[in-house]
Amino acid sequence: MNQSEALAIVREHLTEHRYQHTIGVMETAILLARQYGADEKKAEIAAIFHDYAKFRPKEEMKQIILAEKMAPDLLQYNSELWHAPVGAFLVEKEVGIADMEILNAIKYHTSGRVGMSILEKIIYLADYIEPGRQFPEVEEVRELAKKDLQLALIKAVQNTISFLMNKNQPIFPDTFHTYNDLIANRRTLVDE
Amino acid sequence: MNQSEALAIVREHLTEHRYQHTIGVMETAILLARQYGADEKKAEIAAIFHDYAKFRPKEEMKQIILAEKMAPDLLQYNSELWHAPVGAFLVEKEVGIADMEILNAIKYHTSGRVGMSILEKIIYLADYIEPGRQFPEVEEVRELAKKDLQLALIKAVQNTISFLMNKNQPIFPDTFHTYNDLIANRRTLVDE
Repeated sequence: MNQSEALAIVREHLTEHRYQHTIGVMETAILLARQYGADEKKAEIAAIFHDYAKFRPKEEMKQIILAEKMAPDLLQYNSELWHAPVGAFLVEKEVGIADMEILNAIKYHTSGRVGMSILEKIIYLADYIEPGRQFPEVEEVRELAKKDLQLALIKAVQNTISFLMNKNQPIFPDTFHTYNDLIANRRTLVDE
Repeated sequence: MNQSEALAIVREHLTEHRYQHTIGVMETAILLARQYGADEKKAEIAAIFHDYAKFRPKEEMKQIILAEKMAPDLLQYNSELWHAPVGAFLVEKEVGIADMEILNAIKYHTSGRVGMSILEKIIYLADYIEPGRQFPEVEEVRELAKKDLQLALIKAVQNTISFLMNKNQPIFPDTFHTYNDLIANRRTLVDE
């Protein structure tokens, strides 16, 4: 599947705003893949389809989570988390993408997980720093991403946890575990 | 055991600085217990002994954690966490305190846990806000503690998580779970 075919498919499932975001994630993911030696084509496809299920009705997502026996505690947390695993499922079922690396990059792009692959890290990070993202903390993460994928990801996950704590919202356990896993596996830290 | 007997026992195990901290925790815990309808005597004793194991050699604490089959992941995290469960164990064994409410307040005073009792909350919070504590975030928590135990505790746990993230340190999973549990069981939030 080439880029324009993939974009044509996903466009039907997204708002124009979210489609523009997807383009940004795609361009960022390709650059990160090139920089960090990941498969550019897989990064491109994973990025294009990462928000495939974003606008599915909550009830449909809930039914899929239950029917497919996805993480049972997912339904207790913010529904913003649901589109990622549901998206991976639907991209396989409806679009016919079977590559597990691509599907996992879609599946874990919101929560992260312990033992993220380089492709999963790239999609998580590209989603966070694509050019359309505008919030005070993003520029620091963009700068880190030019130098060190792991440090950039740590900062992005820290910011996500802080953002949720500032709103007194619960934090999905996988996100906590991702943080601890990234910290345990970091190499050097700029600010230490 | 009266207050002066308890203080005399614990004093032998602490530095003078830590003993003064313990006095502060004790006074704060008694006030919080009175305010929030907990057992003042249990709060007093739990506070006096909360840091009983603080200065035990790491190797001794490690052996106790292993021998007593305490949370197996404890040893992978900061040794600052160890003195709380080890303290509860030693206070029972060496001092002869058998009250489970008191022992659990000592055991969980650093990590917190899901489903904290009111006494556990009081000791955690008193340890955080006693008058000797001086750091920028503490005053806000002191003010919250005058009005709402739950909100004060949420803020204290949030600050603890932020503090560790700012230092790129791992966060003990029980602390994450405590945060989510407190958020799920909060009543009203001042800033919402």
